[in-house]
Amino acid sequence: MSGMNRVIQIGIVVRDIERSSKIWSKLLGVEVPKWTETEDESVTKMRYRGKPSSGRAKLAFFTLENITIELIEPIGGPSTWKNFLDQHGEGVHHIAFDVDKIESGIEALRKIGVDIEQKGNFTGGSYAYTCSANGLGVILELLSKS
Amino acid sequence: MSGMNRVIQIGIVVRDIERSSKIWSKLLGVEVPKWTETEDESVTKMRYRGKPSSGRAKLAFFTLENITIELIEPIGGPSTWKNFLDQHGEGVHHIAFDVDKIESGIEALRKIGVDIEQKGNFTGGSYAYTCSANGLGVILELLSKS
Repeated sequence: MSGMNRVIQIGIVVRDIERSSKIWSKLLGVEVPKWTETEDESVTKMRYRGKPSSGRAKLAFFTLENITIELIEPIGGPSTWKNFLDQHGEGVHHIAFDVDKIESGIEALRKIGVDIEQKGNFTGGSYAYTCSANGLGVILELLSKS
Repeated sequence: MSGMNRVIQIGIVVRDIERSSKIWSKLLGVEVPKWTETEDESVTKMRYRGKPSSGRAKLAFFTLENITIELIEPIGGPSTWKNFLDQHGEGVHHIAFDVDKIESGIEALRKIGVDIEQKGNFTGGSYAYTCSANGLGVILELLSKS
């Protein structure tokens, strides 16, 4: 499947983004990044399990040499992030791949039996997360910045 | 901390390594890799929570462009892998960093309040895993091939 040969991001769900950002900063020897919040529903048009959802998250990013670490604190309504935290506690929520076109990526995943649980837009791109029960042992994110 | 600027491996604990290897192979469009088993206790000298342990695992590797995906099926006695599966189910168990010297890496982690839960050797190197309750949201592996 095109775009799957490079993991561009590791997304970690945490309970308290400020606390976790501080510890990551110490580990990496970098400044504590400012967190941002996912955009409003009117922009994201987020859909979770087939329905519009007001789920949001606080996000903080650490850019390493070969990959980005994304910290995610779920806020607001239902989302894959909140569900993961409720089910598993803190942990790696997803690994992300850069794809040209989200829809053809989704179609390719469907062909090998992997379904999508959440999708949405952000200023400058769009994304889709797979269901967790996919046999791969981890949620995949398809990320498109076009 | 030296060596922490590059994630070299994402380790995923799964229940059935043969099943998961097949799905990963389909996703990546590659041959199904043969799994191997971690070496005997006499080689690994594995210690889990301060005590020698007979915990082992089946391992399978997928080499991507910028990172390796390691699938891990826990077998045998107590281990961080088995504990993760019991506590969380399938998921990303760790992200690994390449360090020159395990002991100085362990010492640097200790200084920022992150402790080690399991360590051991393999032919050609050694490793240490942090405790899961470390504020980072994920277990880190220090991996040394010297």
